[in-house]
Amino acid sequence: MLKRVLAEALGTFWLVLGGCGTAVLAGSHVGFGGVAAAFGLTVLTGAFALGRISGGHFNPAVTVGLWAAGKTSATDVVPYVVAQVIGAVIAAAVLYVIASGTAGFDITKGFALNGYGAGSPDGYGLTAALVSEVVLTAVFLVVIVGVVSNSTTAPFAPIAIGLALTLIHLISIPVTNTSVNPARSTGVALIAQGLSLQQLWLFWVAPIVGGVIGGLIGRFFTEESAKE
Amino acid sequence: MLKRVLAEALGTFWLVLGGCGTAVLAGSHVGFGGVAAAFGLTVLTGAFALGRISGGHFNPAVTVGLWAAGKTSATDVVPYVVAQVIGAVIAAAVLYVIASGTAGFDITKGFALNGYGAGSPDGYGLTAALVSEVVLTAVFLVVIVGVVSNSTTAPFAPIAIGLALTLIHLISIPVTNTSVNPARSTGVALIAQGLSLQQLWLFWVAPIVGGVIGGLIGRFFTEESAKE
Amino acid sequence: MLKRVLAEALGTFWLVLGGCGTAVLAGSHVGFGGVAAAFGLTVLTGAFALGRISGGHFNPAVTVGLWAAGKTSATDVVPYVVAQVIGAVIAAAVLYVIASGTAGFDITKGFALNGYGAGSPDGYGLTAALVSEVVLTAVFLVVIVGVVSNSTTAPFAPIAIGLALTLIHLISIPVTNTSVNPARSTGVALIAQGLSLQQLWLFWVAPIVGGVIGGLIGRFFTEESAKE
Amino acid sequence: MLKRVLAEALGTFWLVLGGCGTAVLAGSHVGFGGVAAAFGLTVLTGAFALGRISGGHFNPAVTVGLWAAGKTSATDVVPYVVAQVIGAVIAAAVLYVIASGTAGFDITKGFALNGYGAGSPDGYGLTAALVSEVVLTAVFLVVIVGVVSNSTTAPFAPIAIGLALTLIHLISIPVTNTSVNPARSTGVALIAQGLSLQQLWLFWVAPIVGGVIGGLIGRFFTEESAKE
Repeated sequence: MLKRVLAEALGTFWLVLGGCGTAVLAGSHVGFGGVAAAFGLTVLTGAFALGRISGGHFNPAVTVGLWAAGKTSATDVVPYVVAQVIGAVIAAAVLYVIASGTAGFDITKGFALNGYGAGSPDGYGLTAALVSEVVLTAVFLVVIVGVVSNSTTAPFAPIAIGLALTLIHLISIPVTNTSVNPARSTGVALIAQGLSLQQLWLFWVAPIVGGVIGGLIGRFFTEESAKE
Repeated sequence: MLKRVLAEALGTFWLVLGGCGTAVLAGSHVGFGGVAAAFGLTVLTGAFALGRISGGHFNPAVTVGLWAAGKTSATDVVPYVVAQVIGAVIAAAVLYVIASGTAGFDITKGFALNGYGAGSPDGYGLTAALVSEVVLTAVFLVVIVGVVSNSTTAPFAPIAIGLALTLIHLISIPVTNTSVNPARSTGVALIAQGLSLQQLWLFWVAPIVGGVIGGLIGRFFTEESAKE
Repeated sequence: MLKRVLAEALGTFWLVLGGCGTAVLAGSHVGFGGVAAAFGLTVLTGAFALGRISGGHFNPAVTVGLWAAGKTSATDVVPYVVAQVIGAVIAAAVLYVIASGTAGFDITKGFALNGYGAGSPDGYGLTAALVSEVVLTAVFLVVIVGVVSNSTTAPFAPIAIGLALTLIHLISIPVTNTSVNPARSTGVALIAQGLSLQQLWLFWVAPIVGGVIGGLIGRFFTEESAKE
Repeated sequence: MLKRVLAEALGTFWLVLGGCGTAVLAGSHVGFGGVAAAFGLTVLTGAFALGRISGGHFNPAVTVGLWAAGKTSATDVVPYVVAQVIGAVIAAAVLYVIASGTAGFDITKGFALNGYGAGSPDGYGLTAALVSEVVLTAVFLVVIVGVVSNSTTAPFAPIAIGLALTLIHLISIPVTNTSVNPARSTGVALIAQGLSLQQLWLFWVAPIVGGVIGGLIGRFFTEESAKE
């Protein structure tokens, strides 16, 4: 178990350092498309490297969703989630050290924070944020459960899951800056404080609700196909 | 059959939410290239997740084209197409809810609609639109039939087919906003109404004609190679 | 043989329609990066679909280079090259029909033509063009020969070869608009005429010289490793 | 051994010609995102083509890190590193010949050089540069060791490793222009001279320290999982 939670911490560290790091350090150069690519590639590469150790969740909504899908044991949930949050916080701290190394850095202008209303990149309100985060996390879990449940597709799981996360960011960075991952939201919010901490509840509730819904849909499809 | 049509509905929901969603919510940030990537990734991820349930068509032109290629039974065609249209309409409605959540949204300025003439992003006329949609759907089906007909390439089918859709969008978003998929066109047109509904006929006729042509070409190549 | 040359014609048609089509129709929207992606995806998708029919060359320099590498029989070279050029010309004609469908089209302002000096996008001269085309085609063939010569990597060949072509375009569109493929250069030059026809010789000589060099290097590496 | 060091030299040549070449020749067209894609694709394609000859390191920090991970013999380290540096220098020279072929070229305005402070694209200081290069090289090695240590993921290693390098560039081009590869830094610095040569020490020290750390972490995870 120690190795598995360390793998989850390291993988989530990589997700936040790579995804939020691209947004903070290079966002003005590579745009939302580049940030979307970066988030997906953190999971693609992390899951290829560490997936066989821990399953490669790197996200509390994924861990809970896979538990709902019957793919992860209940005893793993709390240690995995704790490890993910710790990894995300460490990554945000390292990112802060790097970002502080140039005169142009001002954390009040953004630190890859998730939000709605005043915290949304394009000013989307609470309802839009909730719908977006719930629906996108749900489909994310459908993809994850589907691709890992079949021996032909399973070797490609890191590609499918990583690129699904890229797609989710392509859609929704303007809405909430895209979370679908409570650990990712928590890591940067704890460093940046302010509005992002006040709004953090949504980025725990919505992804986990969506993750459970998606896990159950994925279970429905994969169990059915197993019977046929 | 119920599970299969639900998979087609969900997959087409994802195609429209992800592809049209990126165009509507993030198009001004990520450009046509980002939208092209998004459409392809919906199919890549959806086919990895649901392909073994339903075949992963998510597109009436693909279903009809695969029937022409002898790869899908005739009894599947109508239920698949109905499910695809329903999934597309639900996605367009969900997208409307999210998009309405910011003050800047104005559906008359665009909702990822397909069109020609006044409805074409760069003002391409009817002939260009017809040629573009027929030819690109035809090659799409050649790729689909080719990659699924061989045991070495079949595990890569979601990658090849998804990236083929990205390529098709890279080429032709300026011409028709790229359909090659009647369900995708119908979903957003029913929500947005107006010109897109008047021009919707083309985005049923051209993709289906192209799909049948491509299915037959694909059949020619794959049968021939089977004999050698 | 008929099916194989038809596959080469269709694949080269797709390469020119997709790659040059993106440049001509969407280049101002997606930039050189989008065009580079498109060229690579034509080969990735075409080789997945048709590679087992004909080998998926779609390029006279590849056919000649693979002959130098001992991977293609001498009797295939002439029919393959003829088919590739015919496919490219048909694609350029179809592209002309589509491109002509908007008021903004002016073929004298560019039709994805290859060139040097006045014909180079960023004004690179003859020496730079020759070095660029020879070296990049040579490495292209090293990649092709290497990836197809091993049973572990061979199933990934369409991905590796397609993305190699994307990379080659990322590097050298500013220099020559990137050929590394005499058929691609010939197809658009025959439609556009003018300077591109006068400079066409370079885009036969350099890619074929580079292809032979790369084929021989690839043969050296793959034979050596076979002995070890 | 001769074939293996030649493969390392050729692969590193391709890394520098493709990655630095895109930056120098096309950087103003494709942006940091396009350059990040190019660096990753050099490794993806090079490792598919040459990986079974030499292992496909193309980077002294990778060679040393894999030695720390117990995946490369000590006797390989010096010849590999020498070959990598030679390949990088030849590539930088060829790139100089091509780049000099247009009137707009001025090597003092940049030649894809790595640096910090005045040498950093966005003015990041020494600490940020050190942290960035050490941490990113360390995670790079974790990905490499992880993906090659498992028979299911190993065929995908060129994809995972190449895209990890793309991700690393997406994050850190603004900081140091991204090295994580002493050979790549040395090749262009020897041609361009000036500040880049004075700062070159950091791009040997930091990547190699990070590579050893990452190699040991990777060893920890893969040995542990082997026991379970």
